[in-house]
Amino acid sequence: MKFADRTKFLKSSEIREMLKYSQMPDMISFSGGYPNPHAFPSREIVRIVEKIIDKNKFVLQYGPTEGIKELREALKKRMQKKGIKTDIDNIKITTGSQQGLFLLGEILINPGDNIVVESPTYLGALNAFSIFQPNYISIPIDENGMKIDVLEEKLKKEKIKFVYTIPTFQNPSGTTLSLDRRKYLLELAEKYDFFIIEDDPYSELRYSGENIKSIKSLDKNNLVIYLSTFSKILCPGFRLGWIIADEEIGKKFEIAKQNADLCSPNFTQYIAEEYINSGIIDKQIKLIRKMYKRKRDIMLNALNKYFPKNSKWTKPDGGMFIWVEFHEKVDVKKLLEYAIKEKVIFISGAPFYATNPKYNTIRLNFTNTEDNLIEEGIKRLSQALKKIKEGD
Amino acid sequence: MKFADRTKFLKSSEIREMLKYSQMPDMISFSGGYPNPHAFPSREIVRIVEKIIDKNKFVLQYGPTEGIKELREALKKRMQKKGIKTDIDNIKITTGSQQGLFLLGEILINPGDNIVVESPTYLGALNAFSIFQPNYISIPIDENGMKIDVLEEKLKKEKIKFVYTIPTFQNPSGTTLSLDRRKYLLELAEKYDFFIIEDDPYSELRYSGENIKSIKSLDKNNLVIYLSTFSKILCPGFRLGWIIADEEIGKKFEIAKQNADLCSPNFTQYIAEEYINSGIIDKQIKLIRKMYKRKRDIMLNALNKYFPKNSKWTKPDGGMFIWVEFHEKVDVKKLLEYAIKEKVIFISGAPFYATNPKYNTIRLNFTNTEDNLIEEGIKRLSQALKKIKEGD
Repeated sequence: MKFADRTKFLKSSEIREMLKYSQMPDMISFSGGYPNPHAFPSREIVRIVEKIIDKNKFVLQYGPTEGIKELREALKKRMQKKGIKTDIDNIKITTGSQQGLFLLGEILINPGDNIVVESPTYLGALNAFSIFQPNYISIPIDENGMKIDVLEEKLKKEKIKFVYTIPTFQNPSGTTLSLDRRKYLLELAEKYDFFIIEDDPYSELRYSGENIKSIKSLDKNNLVIYLSTFSKILCPGFRLGWIIADEEIGKKFEIAKQNADLCSPNFTQYIAEEYINSGIIDKQIKLIRKMYKRKRDIMLNALNKYFPKNSKWTKPDGGMFIWVEFHEKVDVKKLLEYAIKEKVIFISGAPFYATNPKYNTIRLNFTNTEDNLIEEGIKRLSQALKKIKEGD
Repeated sequence: MKFADRTKFLKSSEIREMLKYSQMPDMISFSGGYPNPHAFPSREIVRIVEKIIDKNKFVLQYGPTEGIKELREALKKRMQKKGIKTDIDNIKITTGSQQGLFLLGEILINPGDNIVVESPTYLGALNAFSIFQPNYISIPIDENGMKIDVLEEKLKKEKIKFVYTIPTFQNPSGTTLSLDRRKYLLELAEKYDFFIIEDDPYSELRYSGENIKSIKSLDKNNLVIYLSTFSKILCPGFRLGWIIADEEIGKKFEIAKQNADLCSPNFTQYIAEEYINSGIIDKQIKLIRKMYKRKRDIMLNALNKYFPKNSKWTKPDGGMFIWVEFHEKVDVKKLLEYAIKEKVIFISGAPFYATNPKYNTIRLNFTNTEDNLIEEGIKRLSQALKKIKEGD
């Protein structure tokens, strides 16, 4: 046997598999979770690079595994404004949020451990955890996020290691966990002794409705491990995220990271620090919100106009995704074939389920398509839908 | 049990633990494997960033897991000049070489698998592999690198998964595997059916002697997995390395990387591509070689002048390190205590052994110290040596 046995559990992301289609000419892609390149502060990055390149001898050097102190200081202050009190020692910079998920899997999951995920949940998290062979317990969601009462019933019967949740503008569904449920979840975590992994890449991208406190900001007993990322508020090309965790977890996490990639890029960390401390970040986020709100509205209007009445979709207050559930007879695999012919693509919903996939669901990204192509794309998709029905 | 059982095998690097000392005022540090910041092309990086930032919409975006095509094309051509023929599909960009080592461990090592390492070998590789719980077989080295005849004797008795080697200017010893031994090793790999992981971060940093072909360039049967890095020929702050492997390994590796961090930074990949294609790289490497040769010579002269006759050290033709073996009565742990008082630090040799450490060895880095402080540092170290003897 050439390969390690664990490679049986390696799964490639269907999102990444769709990349080849998205690069075809005239294809309208609602597939990847890509920010819009017009939302990247390119000129500001050039100016920051000019400013910081000779700042100190560490800008281009190896850095501390936990991340440069200056960036962790800046994040500490920023987190404080969001109600999260933390020490810089509890903040660890990661090579994107994906690394945070993977390393948490590595230090927490024994084969067979019960871990709870939303149903559906972020595919990349499932792939990060699966190599460590957990037993998934899926909890359904509704318009207020994970059904915590269903979780409670499970907890009465089974011991779990952690709950993984994307409470705000969830990927893939766009739904947000209500404040009441956040508190309820925290109570359960105390009562039944498990961690909450709160994955929060999107909360800065709110377009309507009121802010809801992060679970971490409500957490008095260090039960929440918080993850976030620069990918949506600066750019993904820097590969920078961060986690906030208690000392014990933080220490193990740091050693695991040291062995995995030594440290995240110092160069982009220094740029990110200046991006925060100069205040450019807040202007940029305003611009991003405005752009994405417009795109969300265009897509929701187009769905109303073109999509069949027997399908339903979420109306997210923020984030990057709309989740569609078709009539149960719609075979999304077939739909994708027809859609590619119509020159539009999306991501099938099934891979976002850890267990019991719904094959009549899809995820639509609205952030990375030109305004005038969003309606056109939805129109094409509705045509593919008609053809699949006629073809059936 | 809060943590996964595998965390028992997580080991922190002693090199990283020494960082806190290296930042003390007036400390002369021979500890880390850091390139010299004066060897970083800062101004060129600013100019490249200005040039490429608007090159295409992917510069700041998520990128393909295997790395951007443009950089893999540039590396393919550069590898060809070194006698390594490869297709761009066989090149995968990594988040530093450390990630390459970690992911190879993940996809190749089952608990208990025999893997062969040099004795001593690169500590970071041991830490990357150890979490996957291999059984290490250590093969001694001499001035011509790993003793392949000793390896052959082992192979007659034991089945192994792979040999991990840093054949050129080895970390930590500075020694180079002779051409004859490279060929002999390849023959054994064919005969006994194992992989060779050739870790090659230093071969561009040759200061004397003749170039020796990489093992990969001699490999006709895809038995060699080759790793290299931009850390020593551009800067470590970009976190960019690459591996070259056959299709089957490459595929598994790519999925493992996808789950670990999605992709390496597009931003620094585009800079690295321009750094190669503009030809700046070759001018820069000339400059680096000149600088490091001078530093190596200063350190070798200082060792001759100050170090006791009953100690011996390597005379590397390149790379970043000199390896010292003291008289067996010297307790390096005690030496370090005295050295810190004298304001000079180094790395103890013992952690570089997978098995049977020699406690009378140390590693000296010569690249990251100002010329005029190298002799001073060696002098301080010799004073610490005298004190430890007097103290004994």
